[in-house]
Amino acid sequence: MRIVDLIEKKKLGNVLTKEEIDFIVNGYTNGTIPDYQISAFFMAVYFKGMNKQEIADLTLAYVNSGDKVDLSKIDGIKVDKHSSGGVGDKISLIVIPLVASLGIPVAKMSGRGLGHTGGTIDKLESIPGFRTELDEDTFINNVNKYKMAIVGQSANLTPADKKTYALRDVTATVDSIPLIASSIMSKKIASGADAIVLDVKVGSGAFMKSLDMAKELAKTMVDIGKSLNRNTIAVITNMDQPLGHEVGNASEVKEAIKVLKGQGAEDETTVALTIAANMAVLGGAYKDFTEAYNKLENIIYNGKAIDKLKEFIKIQGGDERIVDNLDLLPTAKFNIEIKADKTGFISSVKADDIGIVAMQLGAGRKTKTDKIDFAAGVTIVKKIGDKVNKNDTICILHTNIEDTQNTEILAKAAFDISENKPEKIKYVYETIE
Amino acid sequence: MRIVDLIEKKKLGNVLTKEEIDFIVNGYTNGTIPDYQISAFFMAVYFKGMNKQEIADLTLAYVNSGDKVDLSKIDGIKVDKHSSGGVGDKISLIVIPLVASLGIPVAKMSGRGLGHTGGTIDKLESIPGFRTELDEDTFINNVNKYKMAIVGQSANLTPADKKTYALRDVTATVDSIPLIASSIMSKKIASGADAIVLDVKVGSGAFMKSLDMAKELAKTMVDIGKSLNRNTIAVITNMDQPLGHEVGNASEVKEAIKVLKGQGAEDETTVALTIAANMAVLGGAYKDFTEAYNKLENIIYNGKAIDKLKEFIKIQGGDERIVDNLDLLPTAKFNIEIKADKTGFISSVKADDIGIVAMQLGAGRKTKTDKIDFAAGVTIVKKIGDKVNKNDTICILHTNIEDTQNTEILAKAAFDISENKPEKIKYVYETIE
Repeated sequence: MRIVDLIEKKKLGNVLTKEEIDFIVNGYTNGTIPDYQISAFFMAVYFKGMNKQEIADLTLAYVNSGDKVDLSKIDGIKVDKHSSGGVGDKISLIVIPLVASLGIPVAKMSGRGLGHTGGTIDKLESIPGFRTELDEDTFINNVNKYKMAIVGQSANLTPADKKTYALRDVTATVDSIPLIASSIMSKKIASGADAIVLDVKVGSGAFMKSLDMAKELAKTMVDIGKSLNRNTIAVITNMDQPLGHEVGNASEVKEAIKVLKGQGAEDETTVALTIAANMAVLGGAYKDFTEAYNKLENIIYNGKAIDKLKEFIKIQGGDERIVDNLDLLPTAKFNIEIKADKTGFISSVKADDIGIVAMQLGAGRKTKTDKIDFAAGVTIVKKIGDKVNKNDTICILHTNIEDTQNTEILAKAAFDISENKPEKIKYVYETIE
Repeated sequence: MRIVDLIEKKKLGNVLTKEEIDFIVNGYTNGTIPDYQISAFFMAVYFKGMNKQEIADLTLAYVNSGDKVDLSKIDGIKVDKHSSGGVGDKISLIVIPLVASLGIPVAKMSGRGLGHTGGTIDKLESIPGFRTELDEDTFINNVNKYKMAIVGQSANLTPADKKTYALRDVTATVDSIPLIASSIMSKKIASGADAIVLDVKVGSGAFMKSLDMAKELAKTMVDIGKSLNRNTIAVITNMDQPLGHEVGNASEVKEAIKVLKGQGAEDETTVALTIAANMAVLGGAYKDFTEAYNKLENIIYNGKAIDKLKEFIKIQGGDERIVDNLDLLPTAKFNIEIKADKTGFISSVKADDIGIVAMQLGAGRKTKTDKIDFAAGVTIVKKIGDKVNKNDTICILHTNIEDTQNTEILAKAAFDISENKPEKIKYVYETIE
């Protein structure tokens, strides 16, 4: 087998066999196939696509390239969730205690990564004492006993995907549905998930800008799940503006607490309940989505959800008193209010720009060695559809950095104000299973 | 400027500016842009193409990446020719003296390369004493005085093209018309040509398998010529079977001599006269192609052509007596006749396979350090349309290698014999200018 022939085969739009896909992924992982052949191959995939079987084979080849997490010592169906990424996305913080409170095991493994804020792991570490470095036994025991645990990813999962991702990033081959889908699904499967709920974001602040593209990605991932015997549901949700009101680390923990107390923003609460209800269905707690959704809403209003969060924080070594006293979480030295310069209705809040603002305030990491400022972030005071008068506060910047003049300009520009009230936006577009 | 953005731009089918193309070619040549980005870029070009201006800009960027031969000390319009490559193609050997005999300067620079036989330089070196390493002064003086000279390519011409060609070869991005056209034209322009005649081969033994593809390549190259102020004519010629009767090095010299004596095969003679007549027109000797063609035919029949070849051999240090005594050229120890196994008409002579046969007999180079056996080669006795009886000789293998059993099998299989006489094939399809 020669890689040049396989590139040619894909270039002509032909279907690759499992052996051919394994040859490509193994060759690239062990270094016998160089970058320049793989990048040409990916560009051919961008143009010619892959069929269901090829995508499933590619996913499995990524899974087999590294360690596979063994969760077999945990009782029950291990349901994982994944978000395709957005600004203000704190859904994981909410669904871990919510789903666990139904008795469904949530064994969460999470990376740190780069971005406008930290990952779920970083956000949780803004809680004093919260530890995410658990040994395997503690992790497994906690899930069995409390139905929830989170640990920082330490295993060498899907190294082939990591290597290809770095290459795709510099060769304009990121936005290929088969490549995105196999990358995401391989990580979830290598992490030991039995079933997966995918939160596919669509809108100006998401990687997927159109509903059609988001649907295609969702369908492709659900198909991979079917092919590889992992029950998978994808929910397409709105990312035309940041989710909820908070973008940051400690501030997102605060907002998650509010949601679990029943005081959350409507969009955040709706999306969190939708994801959690689908996890509940896949975990076998309920047959019907609506039944699960209503039950979870109940758990929020009867106080069980917030109690479960306290338990979660406590078993991970954190100070659970923060739940009742948000001031125990890190706070920033400066809180700068950004004002509307005219009267009207908020017609757009550019999530991408808010992400950059959060990053500039210190909430995120540009490089692996950057330190995150847990207290930094943005509070989105006004959201799409809200009425504003001139000089009303539209957002607040939280930071420990003194000079934020340019960031203030960017934050103000992220909000568009129109004369007419825009139509109400949908929070959840569609569920694909 | 970032290369990843330019890959993306081409991926989306947008047009690159001259500055962007220069950035890509210069970056690749000086090593600041790595292979893996260029291969992804080329794959995007394969799918999205380039417009006339982009292709001209790419060609010029290749030209500017290395040395440019200065032929300004040679009087007149320097017309060069190029063949897209085929089996038994000895047209250059024929047209050098033919065109020079009209007073048009032919300053030929030629590489050795790899292939089923040697290049023009190798073929000429099968003539005892023939030297192709001339210093610049001798080269220029000979062209001014005798209107012809040939020299082995020593300058560092179009290094960017060389580097990209090696990459394209292993990334399945060879067969892209913009990339092929710019590669060919850049070499001709860097070699100092004022005007160019292109022999674009089409058929089972050529890189271009369909007439449409050949036409597109021809048109693209003619357009490059126009954009860069080099008068260019492309002739599309047949390569469904080897050209003429001889494939080898010394044997091709012998056949060229026959053509210049008026005893050549019909296909070889027709194609050579067509190329030469177009060179004569571009060189300004004649306004009209037919007039030039007739004049050149005359030059063959009145003996001037063969005299000019003698002169050519003599001024390059070779033994011109070979022209009257072909036995002075290298001859092989073994001459193996391959026989027809049935009666009928030759319906196809697979040029690719005959090329491999010639290579196996010792006529070509697989790697740069291989030594060519000048005496090795194949004589195609029967060509498409010829009647054969069972046990007639269809071809003869000339070699100094003892065991040629497998090669004999391949040679025999290269000939298809059918019951019915096939239609006469065209030698020249079309001229594009």
